[in-house]
Amino acid sequence: MTDGAAPDSGEFGRIRRFFRPLSDGFPGALGLTNDAAVFGVPSDRELVVTTDGMVGEVHFLSTDPPGDIAAKLLRVNLSDLAAMGADPLAYTLVTALPKGLGDDWLAAFAAGLEADQRRYGIGLAGGDSVSTAGPMSFTVTAFGLVPRGQALPRSGGRPGDRVFVTGTIGDAALGLGVSFGTLTAGSDGDRAFLLSRLRRPEPRLGVGAGLRGLASAGLDVSDGLIADLAHIAEESGCRAEVAAARVPVSGAARAVLAAGAATIETLITGGDDYELLFTAPVDRVPAIQTLARSTGVPIVEIGRLTEGETGRVVALDETGAPLPLEKRGWVHF
Amino acid sequence: MTDGAAPDSGEFGRIRRFFRPLSDGFPGALGLTNDAAVFGVPSDRELVVTTDGMVGEVHFLSTDPPGDIAAKLLRVNLSDLAAMGADPLAYTLVTALPKGLGDDWLAAFAAGLEADQRRYGIGLAGGDSVSTAGPMSFTVTAFGLVPRGQALPRSGGRPGDRVFVTGTIGDAALGLGVSFGTLTAGSDGDRAFLLSRLRRPEPRLGVGAGLRGLASAGLDVSDGLIADLAHIAEESGCRAEVAAARVPVSGAARAVLAAGAATIETLITGGDDYELLFTAPVDRVPAIQTLARSTGVPIVEIGRLTEGETGRVVALDETGAPLPLEKRGWVHF
Repeated sequence: MTDGAAPDSGEFGRIRRFFRPLSDGFPGALGLTNDAAVFGVPSDRELVVTTDGMVGEVHFLSTDPPGDIAAKLLRVNLSDLAAMGADPLAYTLVTALPKGLGDDWLAAFAAGLEADQRRYGIGLAGGDSVSTAGPMSFTVTAFGLVPRGQALPRSGGRPGDRVFVTGTIGDAALGLGVSFGTLTAGSDGDRAFLLSRLRRPEPRLGVGAGLRGLASAGLDVSDGLIADLAHIAEESGCRAEVAAARVPVSGAARAVLAAGAATIETLITGGDDYELLFTAPVDRVPAIQTLARSTGVPIVEIGRLTEGETGRVVALDETGAPLPLEKRGWVHF
Repeated sequence: MTDGAAPDSGEFGRIRRFFRPLSDGFPGALGLTNDAAVFGVPSDRELVVTTDGMVGEVHFLSTDPPGDIAAKLLRVNLSDLAAMGADPLAYTLVTALPKGLGDDWLAAFAAGLEADQRRYGIGLAGGDSVSTAGPMSFTVTAFGLVPRGQALPRSGGRPGDRVFVTGTIGDAALGLGVSFGTLTAGSDGDRAFLLSRLRRPEPRLGVGAGLRGLASAGLDVSDGLIADLAHIAEESGCRAEVAAARVPVSGAARAVLAAGAATIETLITGGDDYELLFTAPVDRVPAIQTLARSTGVPIVEIGRLTEGETGRVVALDETGAPLPLEKRGWVHF
């Protein structure tokens, strides 16, 4: 019951060897030699804190490439920061690993963390390493900064606001099928793309920062487009409509749809997209188009908030008729 | 792979029911309805951040009372804040639980969190709930505040500084034996005390705050007194001596020693004490005695830092001769 942190064990030394260098760029980490990290927050900023756990065989497969596991772990947390309009700063990491995991695995995992630290300009602030008899699991707590009072809420949407989404929706849901070997439609390139979208989501940090003062409400799509729009509608006291045909879909997903191997419902209820979903008053449409151009991230208007039953989301087909969604639980709760 | 957070599932609703109320006292949690917590840090303060994972059958037994698991989870993190001289503020929590865990368990766990939140004046800032096929596990990230520049380092000890420890040492190591049913010495009351010291450590927050500007180096004892003193010695570039007979031992532990069921070595290498171990120049001894009186927490001088081999810790017996410690790995590394 105390073996996890035995300071002289090979495990402990190995963790220090692989993880301590990851803290080099963040002075507040104190080189991971102390009980805690220490850092200040500028008086014109607020700290944004999010935490997510990922468990093997639930959120990823233990056989996934270690660098992909590392990337997803960081990126789902950074996506939460993006959804708040925050600029990323640092993170802490708790690893729970089976004993006997090889050095090669740890080295590849740490290399994945390091690559994304550089990509997103963050540092490791602290952590803990424990052993487990169960599947490997990880918890990241990510820290960002946002100008005081400008964090993006979920509750600011108003009837008449337009609904927007970044990137493309549904790739990760199809990527899950690729991961399990159950999705065989599309080309090899299509399936590789869908798998990469599942394993290496792209946190929309530039768009998130640009939405400060522009969007009325926002979040990142993790439960599925429809379910997450319901969160905004619920918190904003509105009903929402989505034109299903306007939902942006990748070429790879389009190939899968064309082959009859999935439906639009799969895409808009699937989850794990980590795209930003947000609302804004109609007079901000030009500024949002400018933001899309300046960041290079596609942003598409897909619907609007309306008066009506709070939290209700209706997906409309091309004739304007409600699309019956089988996963009713995700649509209205 | 996406079931952990299904917003309409019984699990999700249950978690919200039990955990959302825990965020009531911390406005930055935004009622747990957003992607992240948002809060400011006063410009004369620094944020102190620590994170610890606890895995069933490694750090606790899944059959332990849920309220005890909750208490230990929070307290080991609060102890890290105490070791930095920080005042506690808030925490985030990730739970990884087996499916099918009953409402009763969750209610008792949440009640344990709530009781300690009130005891220590902290609030739940955010979290995540996932399912696991393995043992239950938890990660807490705790936040505290410390006056700028006054966090207690591990590296500030100097030759001649005295070594102090709070409370009593070795109870938790014996409590582990009680937990496993292998320790039968002492009275029923003794064993209940030792078990409670294992399951409900007492973070020394008052002493930690009082040590700001007073101690030269400090940490909380988690790996074992000797191993943790080696951490201070290592980071401070010193050797350290401990008079084994001066190490404070509880009446219950003394009864176990008297029965021959454990040795002083068990106590000073056992770990999980969560007492504060710190160093200070000799001219601060009176101020430290005053701190002990004002907080009501016993503080005992047990040794000193010396020049010599960096990181080396020597335990001395009553004649001043080095005590041979079998667990050599814990003594010097």
